Amino acid sequence: MSRIRGVLAPIVTPFQTDLAIDIPRFLAHAHRLVTQGVGLTPFGTTSESHSLSSDEQIDLLDRMITDGIPADRMMPGTGTCSIPETVRLTAHATACGCAGVLMLPPYYYKGVSDEGLFRYYSEVIQRVGDTRLRVYLYHIPPMAIVGITPALVERLLMAYPETVVGMKDSSNDWQNTLAFLQAFAAGGFDVFAGSDTWLLATLRHQGAGCISATVNVNATAIVRLSHEWTNPDAEAQQVRLDQVRSLMSRQRNIIAALKATIAMATDDPTWRIMRPPLVELTTEETRVLAADLATLGWSFA
Amino acid sequence: MSRIRGVLAPIVTPFQTDLAIDIPRFLAHAHRLVTQGVGLTPFGTTSESHSLSSDEQIDLLDRMITDGIPADRMMPGTGTCSIPETVRLTAHATACGCAGVLMLPPYYYKGVSDEGLFRYYSEVIQRVGDTRLRVYLYHIPPMAIVGITPALVERLLMAYPETVVGMKDSSNDWQNTLAFLQAFAAGGFDVFAGSDTWLLATLRHQGAGCISATVNVNATAIVRLSHEWTNPDAEAQQVRLDQVRSLMSRQRNIIAALKATIAMATDDPTWRIMRPPLVELTTEETRVLAADLATLGWSFA
Repeated sequence: MSRIRGVLAPIVTPFQTDLAIDIPRFLAHAHRLVTQGVGLTPFGTTSESHSLSSDEQIDLLDRMITDGIPADRMMPGTGTCSIPETVRLTAHATACGCAGVLMLPPYYYKGVSDEGLFRYYSEVIQRVGDTRLRVYLYHIPPMAIVGITPALVERLLMAYPETVVGMKDSSNDWQNTLAFLQAFAAGGFDVFAGSDTWLLATLRHQGAGCISATVNVNATAIVRLSHEWTNPDAEAQQVRLDQVRSLMSRQRNIIAALKATIAMATDDPTWRIMRPPLVELTTEETRVLAADLATLGWSFA
Repeated sequence: MSRIRGVLAPIVTPFQTDLAIDIPRFLAHAHRLVTQGVGLTPFGTTSESHSLSSDEQIDLLDRMITDGIPADRMMPGTGTCSIPETVRLTAHATACGCAGVLMLPPYYYKGVSDEGLFRYYSEVIQRVGDTRLRVYLYHIPPMAIVGITPALVERLLMAYPETVVGMKDSSNDWQNTLAFLQAFAAGGFDVFAGSDTWLLATLRHQGAGCISATVNVNATAIVRLSHEWTNPDAEAQQVRLDQVRSLMSRQRNIIAALKATIAMATDDPTWRIMRPPLVELTTEETRVLAADLATLGWSFA
């Protein structure tokens, strides 16, 4: 099977007013994104995955596949703090035929060593025990605090060269992404930028693409740059992506801003609902967001 | 039912060589602690709870109760990042008759607001929907980063005065503990110090006691001070507790040091095993620990 590359959406998860996952809205959004040419990362940070139970995640992935979302276009997040829970989610995603899984390091205990993280990933890979498994390491220090180092990647590549095949770098630090690209990309290790802000730069350094929150609302333009990154207007395209990204990042919470944007685009206020501890944008914040988007020519009238 | 107070052990969790929970060793340690007069907090940070699945936690609590550990002497940790998982663990512990539950805030998303945390705790309390539920908030910023503020406590006390009855402060910052004691202890809100380092000071300011890692290896002395804190030699007793605590804290990882100490005390090296990402002490680190403990007169020959 060829590797999943290009642009992936850490797909946002809509909720009903009783906070249950809103399956129909979720599937409609998933199909819309797939049609726009992006792969899906359900259960990423942007998906409020940490506010979902493992049972909910397993059920939702099953429903996506039953509903015709192609498994080979998916890289679900499966990393939790515990080996048994991560094994359960990872084995399920792999058995479903997913292209790979995006795996956080265990993030509760702080100050853990690379030795401990190596043992953790080793146990998970061995317990899943499936040659189809493809692991993408997830480096997101702003949330997880615990991070992925080049030394850890090197050790995992040595031990599991067929299984550990890439990473997502959400450090939002280009020098860090560049270091991983320079160390590992030529060897076939697929580095995804954690934000479309670094899409052009990543592709220029043999990167695999991006897995970016903003793909939920700006898929077509991001996919276009992923195809046209050698074109003369590539930098101009990147500037336009950055305008959307920076406008979203300016909001109090980017996930709430994405949901508010989808709510406006689909004229469906239910989309605004967040699971606690995250909180939806206020009416005033939504008004500011709409005004900001209008400056880019996005209109929801 | 009278509130649980005094000295509680966040009981360490032994594992077999295959990393499964070692039930017989766990129960033996639990009975030993109860006999020494302490209450139990299974699934605390020191218990490697975040390395256990919810299923494992539910099964282990059932086994403790079946094995005769009194539920009214237990305050299990039940806080996860997700409402459904926290509700499941909390409802189970409450149905078992536990004295209360120790509940972390959801800790994956950083920079969350008190409004979001209030909504989170509200949802959990309302979904559990059991008048027997007693919630102790767990403030441990070194691990969770997300913390509990006085404003949040105030709001929860207003909304759920019968249910939100106390907290554990593991900030390791006496000024913070003191602020909570001064604001809430007189009103009947039970503040537990997160370390026996602050046991005497906490009891002198109307605190409820301590829930401390070191109780796993130093229960008798800590319980004694909790009974004799008005005696003339109380400060001398506190100094002796501090010697043990500081020696344990000096090790690379306090949980590994506690397990190594139990391994030596019971002449049972299996006790040293940790679940990744945590790592057991090396032979050399264990030798240093034994030498350190020998300076306090602890001998395992």
